[in-house]
Amino acid sequence: MENISPRSLLDSLNWRYATKVFDSDKKIPADHLAALEGSLVLSPSSFGLQPWRFEVITNDELRKELLPHSWNQAQVTDCSHFVVLSARENLGEEEINVFLQRTAEVRGVPIETLDGYGQMMSGFIGNMDDQGRLQWAKLQTYIALGQLMTSAAVLGIDACPMEGIAPNEYDRILGLPQKGYRTTVACALGYRSADDKYAELAKVRFEKEALLSRRT
Amino acid sequence: MENISPRSLLDSLNWRYATKVFDSDKKIPADHLAALEGSLVLSPSSFGLQPWRFEVITNDELRKELLPHSWNQAQVTDCSHFVVLSARENLGEEEINVFLQRTAEVRGVPIETLDGYGQMMSGFIGNMDDQGRLQWAKLQTYIALGQLMTSAAVLGIDACPMEGIAPNEYDRILGLPQKGYRTTVACALGYRSADDKYAELAKVRFEKEALLSRRT
Repeated sequence: MENISPRSLLDSLNWRYATKVFDSDKKIPADHLAALEGSLVLSPSSFGLQPWRFEVITNDELRKELLPHSWNQAQVTDCSHFVVLSARENLGEEEINVFLQRTAEVRGVPIETLDGYGQMMSGFIGNMDDQGRLQWAKLQTYIALGQLMTSAAVLGIDACPMEGIAPNEYDRILGLPQKGYRTTVACALGYRSADDKYAELAKVRFEKEALLSRRT
Repeated sequence: MENISPRSLLDSLNWRYATKVFDSDKKIPADHLAALEGSLVLSPSSFGLQPWRFEVITNDELRKELLPHSWNQAQVTDCSHFVVLSARENLGEEEINVFLQRTAEVRGVPIETLDGYGQMMSGFIGNMDDQGRLQWAKLQTYIALGQLMTSAAVLGIDACPMEGIAPNEYDRILGLPQKGYRTTVACALGYRSADDKYAELAKVRFEKEALLSRRT
């Protein structure tokens, strides 16, 4: 396995920024797209439960329909691939069972051997009300968002995370509630335009000492 | 800038897993630790507001104190560096102003030029109640968690995200509420032990087709 150097990682994370203007002529090539989709599917989640769905949208009509529900931010229509992340609603026994079946299948073990793990998950999820469970699933989708943006950065692909969207309109347009999911956040992926003046602005972060304590 | 190849990224993301047994003799070297700390500080957040703090804990006494509030998971004491992520409480005008001052300073612009941006943030945050604002800050810390885990993976460093902690006890032991922050989640960092049988288990993920739709 080939790792990245600490220097290259920091260079990539400093290079990235919330891209405002994408070059609409530049599309993510197939191998890089596969890696980004892989990074979504491989995202860590609590218990490994993966309470999420991802829409990877290139369809122009669909993007135009989402645009007015995204404060008309042009990234929606101009980026190469527009990703919508959504969280599982009403997480419960059914989702736990599907996940345990998948675990048994992938690992080639009898599902009974996973009973304890199933009970642990049921106990955890059973302790939350509907809103709490959706909120928890939503948190998991933000891990996937983080992994996606970092993956894009180290691949040299630009990204713009977008909370400024109308989740209910997105849900309706994408038909997510019928599948049991609710929109949480979006991320535009592609390549910055030479016109994007935001690319030149200094990155604003607080001093490390202000945000991070080493407890030695 | 040196990017990673799509293949190497996928290899790294497949290599990583929630490490259960760390080799307590192996410590993260300074350059890699700096890159991981940098990945935390450079994490994207909504508006760039960075409503978080990170404790990077190596102190043995402190880790022993946290252990019983972490379901006694040995990762807390055995990993090289134990990171606790916390979210800003009571986000309001003060935090917005500090952030605008920092922006003006880093970019060398008069703070008045940022008035519109400040009003946008005030409007957004003012629309949420106390619980909603903490929840929103908590979501942002999960982006940082995602970025941290992905960064660790591409550097070849093992990690174990941990939601199974008692946030109130962590708060008390780390003195976070006095600083205006609340524990959200933790992440153990270091190197897997040869004894960790979890390292050999097949990674369980749903099929890409089950989680991801290409809307072309």
